Amino acid sequence: MPRRRPERGPAVDVLRIGHRPGRDPRLTTHLALTARALGARRFWLNPPDPEIAERIEAVGRRWGGTFAVEGTERWAETVRAYPGAVVHLTMYGEPLDRALPKLRRRKEVLAVVGGAKVPAALYSMATANVAVGHQPHSEVAALALLLAGLKGIPGPGAWPGAVAEIVPSRRGKNVRPVAAPPGSL
Amino acid sequence: MPRRRPERGPAVDVLRIGHRPGRDPRLTTHLALTARALGARRFWLNPPDPEIAERIEAVGRRWGGTFAVEGTERWAETVRAYPGAVVHLTMYGEPLDRALPKLRRRKEVLAVVGGAKVPAALYSMATANVAVGHQPHSEVAALALLLAGLKGIPGPGAWPGAVAEIVPSRRGKNVRPVAAPPGSL
Repeated sequence: MPRRRPERGPAVDVLRIGHRPGRDPRLTTHLALTARALGARRFWLNPPDPEIAERIEAVGRRWGGTFAVEGTERWAETVRAYPGAVVHLTMYGEPLDRALPKLRRRKEVLAVVGGAKVPAALYSMATANVAVGHQPHSEVAALALLLAGLKGIPGPGAWPGAVAEIVPSRRGKNVRPVAAPPGSL
Repeated sequence: MPRRRPERGPAVDVLRIGHRPGRDPRLTTHLALTARALGARRFWLNPPDPEIAERIEAVGRRWGGTFAVEGTERWAETVRAYPGAVVHLTMYGEPLDRALPKLRRRKEVLAVVGGAKVPAALYSMATANVAVGHQPHSEVAALALLLAGLKGIPGPGAWPGAVAEIVPSRRGKNVRPVAAPPGSL
């Protein structure tokens, strides 16, 4: 029977702006997998890319959870309609450790990550522009550290609906099938 | 005059195994930039890729620091010759929070990150196999969280030798030229 993950911190959604469908999908895939693994709820992709959505959904079918990938044609509308705090991750922003205490008290946080070119309007639309370090690095790293700061790093244990779980191991790989809960189909 | 970054935690080197020169270089570039931004000392790339080395060195010429990228043809020799703890980042390993206290006491840590296929020998050659979460995600995210756990996240301030520094800003971008220290050429 899968253990429940203890929920901690705000619900976090992620919006990826400026994805380029048809180019190497690995970077956006890494971003979405990082969002999922560290407890985000949803991943908006602008522009939409059904191939990436399908790839991430396949991960969820095996490893559980309710993480969802959705396309959005208009990123600005997604930002404006968001009911919680909007955090734009940028190396130009205020330090993460200064922003975290306020953000941890919010119920919902939208983390916005850009590609190479970020629309200038985003800086003023965001509730906060937050830097994880003040050097050029990676939106994958920045998102990971924001999520870990807001929600911690999830411990081991099967996620709801998983058919497999990893049993932490000091050497090698140990993947265990997860039994369906009694009474399920 | 550039402020000195306070050094914290062990010196960390990173070894990237299974890079594929000629494919999209963004993922390995993100990995190297993440290593640099979060305070690693050196990045070994297997197999070597001079284009990526040059790209990262260009970042260092502008933003400072002594981070170095080096190629290695034989990853196993690099691992065996390493004088400190060897940490293989893998979703199958023991939880990061269990491994961190021991690792923080080491003087030198080599973080090893694989590509799609990791040589099985690595699991037994490593001092520790460490998982950052127990779900599929990203070696960039895993490296970021290991480095932040070992060394913290560097605060603002120019790095030694930088010609530019970012001044943290709540809105927009503020990049300041860094004056050479008095007496320098």
